[in-house]
Amino acid sequence: MLDPAIADLARGPNFGALSFVLPSGAIATHIMWVDATDEHVLINTELHRAKYRAMTPDAKVTVTIWHHADPYKHGEVRGHVVGEVRGAEARAHIDALSHKYRGTDYAARIESERVILKIQPDRQRARGL
Amino acid sequence: MLDPAIADLARGPNFGALSFVLPSGAIATHIMWVDATDEHVLINTELHRAKYRAMTPDAKVTVTIWHHADPYKHGEVRGHVVGEVRGAEARAHIDALSHKYRGTDYAARIESERVILKIQPDRQRARGL
Repeated sequence: MLDPAIADLARGPNFGALSFVLPSGAIATHIMWVDATDEHVLINTELHRAKYRAMTPDAKVTVTIWHHADPYKHGEVRGHVVGEVRGAEARAHIDALSHKYRGTDYAARIESERVILKIQPDRQRARGL
Repeated sequence: MLDPAIADLARGPNFGALSFVLPSGAIATHIMWVDATDEHVLINTELHRAKYRAMTPDAKVTVTIWHHADPYKHGEVRGHVVGEVRGAEARAHIDALSHKYRGTDYAARIESERVILKIQPDRQRARGL
């Protein structure tokens, strides 16, 4: 289970810092829109992107989500990808995220195909939540 | 040299997400106060903390700093630690950071010793700056 306080944070209009290791060994830390179910942190990306290629099922990834108005309230989720969703559901999900953060449908060009990545927590740490 | 736009961001009252790899192989991503010189991103921590132990000179670390009022404006610095400063300078620096972010001297208990870590960029990526 995802910590309910971190899940609430991820469902609100709050950003996450998604970290994963690149083939070079360097760590990428990207500011991302995030979402959550009761079990997983959700990230929505595209198939051609480095983060999708790097976030294989055995890869360790971390998402730290902070409250937009108070970054001292934050939650760190260290985990790994346990599933993905493509197709119409992933396309609709990026519109839902765009509405949450921007108030409009997703307007950027989709270069390949949207994909939802489900991140299962291995270790969680909430601060100020 | 640090990208001047990222250095400006780090000198403002903006937070960073600092990522490093733990001995377990998991990635830690911590929300941090940050600062910068023209060459380096600066982090101020304590000697007993996991991040200090993990951030050895050969370790890859990443700091992504976002504008507090507009996270779409952000800069990612992938690099490594090239130096540290302890003693009175590090103690004064945590007070200066506290004034930048909180408006007051640093009030938390210092458990070991403050240390400034200097992160040299290997690769930088600015967005919206």
